[in-house]
Amino acid sequence: MNNLITDVPGLKVGNAEDAGAASGTTAVVFDAPATAGFAVPGGAPALRDTGLLAPEMTVAQVDAFVLSGGSVFGLDAPGGAIAWLHARGRGFAVDAARAPIVPGAALFDLDNGGDKDWGRRPPYFDLGWAAAENAGRDFKLGSFGAGCGATTYDLKGGLGSASAVSSSGLVVGALAAVNAVGRATRGDSPRFWAAAYERGGEFGGLGEGAASDDALVFALKRDAPAPANTTLAVVATDAPLDKAQATRLAIMATAGFALALRPAYSPFDGDVVFAASTARASRTPDLRDLAEIGTLAAECLARAIARGVYEATPLPFDGAMRSWRGRWGSRQ
Amino acid sequence: MNNLITDVPGLKVGNAEDAGAASGTTAVVFDAPATAGFAVPGGAPALRDTGLLAPEMTVAQVDAFVLSGGSVFGLDAPGGAIAWLHARGRGFAVDAARAPIVPGAALFDLDNGGDKDWGRRPPYFDLGWAAAENAGRDFKLGSFGAGCGATTYDLKGGLGSASAVSSSGLVVGALAAVNAVGRATRGDSPRFWAAAYERGGEFGGLGEGAASDDALVFALKRDAPAPANTTLAVVATDAPLDKAQATRLAIMATAGFALALRPAYSPFDGDVVFAASTARASRTPDLRDLAEIGTLAAECLARAIARGVYEATPLPFDGAMRSWRGRWGSRQ
Repeated sequence: MNNLITDVPGLKVGNAEDAGAASGTTAVVFDAPATAGFAVPGGAPALRDTGLLAPEMTVAQVDAFVLSGGSVFGLDAPGGAIAWLHARGRGFAVDAARAPIVPGAALFDLDNGGDKDWGRRPPYFDLGWAAAENAGRDFKLGSFGAGCGATTYDLKGGLGSASAVSSSGLVVGALAAVNAVGRATRGDSPRFWAAAYERGGEFGGLGEGAASDDALVFALKRDAPAPANTTLAVVATDAPLDKAQATRLAIMATAGFALALRPAYSPFDGDVVFAASTARASRTPDLRDLAEIGTLAAECLARAIARGVYEATPLPFDGAMRSWRGRWGSRQ
Repeated sequence: MNNLITDVPGLKVGNAEDAGAASGTTAVVFDAPATAGFAVPGGAPALRDTGLLAPEMTVAQVDAFVLSGGSVFGLDAPGGAIAWLHARGRGFAVDAARAPIVPGAALFDLDNGGDKDWGRRPPYFDLGWAAAENAGRDFKLGSFGAGCGATTYDLKGGLGSASAVSSSGLVVGALAAVNAVGRATRGDSPRFWAAAYERGGEFGGLGEGAASDDALVFALKRDAPAPANTTLAVVATDAPLDKAQATRLAIMATAGFALALRPAYSPFDGDVVFAASTARASRTPDLRDLAEIGTLAAECLARAIARGVYEATPLPFDGAMRSWRGRWGSRQ
């Protein structure tokens, strides 16, 4: 176990970045089509091809999920992953044709200091291809992939991941690209909101303790940013789930936003959770199993969010937002 | 300020109980029709007349909300409140007719030791009338109203409430009937999951501290109860909101379940949040205000959930589930 979503058998994760644009893309590529669902608790989502994910829609399985920076431009990224998968013969079969199914979502990092003057061809289609090409069992956390250009209220955001195993041996994992309008930490304190769920010092091991004085003051600037920030997430399990169960898993996982971020589900954030079942486990889950893996998915997502901020490094620009380690690393 | 949802100008709350049935009903009655929305994060809801609450549906305002024990039978309770309101000339006007708009939800307390052999006439219609009749600015917490027969994993549940004021002076309040399949406390410990948000010792003032050893063990019996438990909630504000904003308020408030209960959003729970705007404040909220009152609504709901368990008293039956005070009151 590597405490990554790739501990779930049957999937790989790849990152790609455009350093000049200070943005990037992350692809979750399934070894075989995976049954999927989603939930959108945020108020400002940027989504692509999620209409098919509703339980009553026909296509039940996806080939990949793509999370990307770039806001509306980043919704090109699934296209690159689709082309990459198609070149390998993957996709939903319609007679001889193959249509790779790749729902995606984007976060808003258009105002982070990177060069966004990309003219006619934004970089995201190619980033989507490269992220799929780079997919493996190991991948980097922090300022990589969709977390490359991500920020939070006052600390650099990033890509995080975590995993857990249920009492029945079912594996659950989460991946998060953390770009929240709010904070993952308790005010002007190094402690993470998700501290109650931390395992093995994965985000510093500082524990819970008291909040700092301003932690209970609402953290949102009055001169608010554009109404788009967004934390993007994928959760996965090897438990065999149908589409409705995958949707319940996604809904339960949204609790992870509430456990790790303040505010959660805001009108500024396009927070989304994609959920998938690789069905590699033989145990058919009952409702109790579903409740347990949903609880673990929420906790893994909370841990992944904290790790994404904890592992981040600052962008190489004057005035770039400082990282958790830059702010707190020498003062623990 | 009484730290109750009735701190929000423009609404009253009333309880009614059937002691023999060990069940009851709570009505939130608005002084004038209130713009409303809702969100259903739980997997086993019992709802009445919520179809009209979607933003695209025509009727935008409600006269009351009713929360009730009794599961499917409890969905009679809004009918009693409707009759009570109608007798007072209240209701959506269609020519000379008046149709009081009272969405409602029920929790599962059919297996709590009370006498449920009510034959042809379940008590809930009359409880709905009585709860509306009893509505006032003050009301009891704990084992009253919809919290009368409520339970959690291993402690008696109950009715809770809390309020807060935003940085712009907008008032927010929450009401919860806590009957969760899971726990509001951290394992076999008196500490509440919601402790980080506690104000003024409202649920014991024990603070956060470390979880007990079993707090991170998934709390759900393998011999699971019937797939129905459910925490019901109402949040309200005096900020003028339209229906879509009230829906966003409801969605943001669902974070309160995640902050106060483990598991949250389970397939066993029919968790629902009703949200309403009494529009008594003059300030037109911007997106930042909406994010702030949504955050406060989530925290008020988390605090209300903890208070509901903290204030509960046990049912007067042999073998009834013990209360928080019965388990921990002498050991603080």
